[in-house]
Amino acid sequence: MLAVTILGNNSALSMHDRHQTAQVVTCDEQLFLIDCGESTQNQLHRYKVRKSKINHIFISHLHGDHYYGLAGLLNTYSLTNRKEPLHLYATPILKDIIDLQMKASASEFNFDFHFHPITEASILLDLPGITVSCFPVTHKIECWGFLFQEKEKARKIDAVLAEEKGIPKEQFKVLKEGKDVQNESGEWISYLEVTSRNIPPKSYAFCADTKYEEKIIPIIQNADLIYHESTYLDDQMEKAEQRFHSTSTQAAKIAQKAKVKRMLLGHFSSKYEDISEFVLQAKQTFENTDVSKEGVTYLI
Amino acid sequence: MLAVTILGNNSALSMHDRHQTAQVVTCDEQLFLIDCGESTQNQLHRYKVRKSKINHIFISHLHGDHYYGLAGLLNTYSLTNRKEPLHLYATPILKDIIDLQMKASASEFNFDFHFHPITEASILLDLPGITVSCFPVTHKIECWGFLFQEKEKARKIDAVLAEEKGIPKEQFKVLKEGKDVQNESGEWISYLEVTSRNIPPKSYAFCADTKYEEKIIPIIQNADLIYHESTYLDDQMEKAEQRFHSTSTQAAKIAQKAKVKRMLLGHFSSKYEDISEFVLQAKQTFENTDVSKEGVTYLI
Repeated sequence: MLAVTILGNNSALSMHDRHQTAQVVTCDEQLFLIDCGESTQNQLHRYKVRKSKINHIFISHLHGDHYYGLAGLLNTYSLTNRKEPLHLYATPILKDIIDLQMKASASEFNFDFHFHPITEASILLDLPGITVSCFPVTHKIECWGFLFQEKEKARKIDAVLAEEKGIPKEQFKVLKEGKDVQNESGEWISYLEVTSRNIPPKSYAFCADTKYEEKIIPIIQNADLIYHESTYLDDQMEKAEQRFHSTSTQAAKIAQKAKVKRMLLGHFSSKYEDISEFVLQAKQTFENTDVSKEGVTYLI
Repeated sequence: MLAVTILGNNSALSMHDRHQTAQVVTCDEQLFLIDCGESTQNQLHRYKVRKSKINHIFISHLHGDHYYGLAGLLNTYSLTNRKEPLHLYATPILKDIIDLQMKASASEFNFDFHFHPITEASILLDLPGITVSCFPVTHKIECWGFLFQEKEKARKIDAVLAEEKGIPKEQFKVLKEGKDVQNESGEWISYLEVTSRNIPPKSYAFCADTKYEEKIIPIIQNADLIYHESTYLDDQMEKAEQRFHSTSTQAAKIAQKAKVKRMLLGHFSSKYEDISEFVLQAKQTFENTDVSKEGVTYLI
């Protein structure tokens, strides 16, 4: 099960009860936090996300609205006696900022804290069920998108049929891995006879803050869901260009060209109190679009 | 008019709808922010404090719950095109942290930003109506309390009487300053004859995070109001000592010995959902005590 819960869908300022960027990706029992604007810990609390289950945090870039809530969250982890190690993935200078803040408070984290500098497109994390990789996007400062790819799941076995064919139960695991086994009579049984493919693995791409840039298309190609920023409506194309942001239709063009299955729009400028126009504009180019809503968990 | 508006009265964590330390002192039209825990800008918004009117920010110390909201507030000032200069008073290393954050975002404030390092007990600010000075308190790390002292106000004039005595109107200002003047006949008139003392100047002391320490008593002596932390109830005296915090009765002893007029308690540990016991304990030693309430403006 892959899903994303939106904690903040607004750009620079928190306004109109929309908050700065933060979202939680869930893969089975594993929680991953992407970005951590100010008050993210309040949003985690508000939407009952179990923050102790987050073991990996990914920061796209170092504009304040994407990480000013991080220091407070780390502080809270320390104060609430977090036990699990915590892994943080970000541009190297974030480590210097955290180190300086810790020095200023003469304190240390009381959990294992691992900082992983992001310096190039790469696989950041390879877990049994999922990989997370980063890819560069085109923003005013260095900025990274994140691609979550589930791994192929174990095949489903028809246990009744497998027993009829005389396969010992301890061999079921081997069959599920897509390998042939011998039955009790020593006869080889193809895994194809007694297993079928599980739900196909899903993928999710967080495209961070970016101007319209087609170079990300091959990376996010065929994703089941992408989150693409659309800070502005189309009449603000020039401002979007200047500020290295995208408009609703630009986001939709990326989704269309990358042949993704579904897109969520986010990172709306505070100048828009009503954001319903975004989806109307985008749908003209890419039908399966929604505006992301805070507190909503989107199953992928 | 001197007043303080409480924006956060809780200690390390934000819980029970109590927030991290922040408060706004108002002196006539001037607003001063003391401390800036995470989400302070939300609290300013919630309680309709005009944040553009804040020109001076004082940070007591660099535990995160006292300043992790500062970077976001400064960012917001930049994004909303603040015009007025902003003055920040804090331990020098905070300047390094801000500089590093600005470097990481490759940005600059688009308003005049002045950092004033606090290194010793001194008058930090001397304005026409008020002075603000800092004094060291005793905490785990370097920590400063702040004393706000209104200046003597211009004397009140009995205008009818002054005119009867033939004093030209343009001389009224001189009389209000407590100086004698000549009337139209050249006769000297004592200011004492036609003016009376205005409301006495008030004072407010923010005593920051501190263990029980009598050395602050002469500094806050006779203050009209003090805000003293009481992180713990009296049964946690040992923990308070270890963590360089105070209990309710310790705070009350300071208030009593300093002969202040009134005390607000704050910086409550998140372990207390109900904080009513604090005032009951403190009142046994110092009657004119209240627990500080968020969103309430206390006139001094």
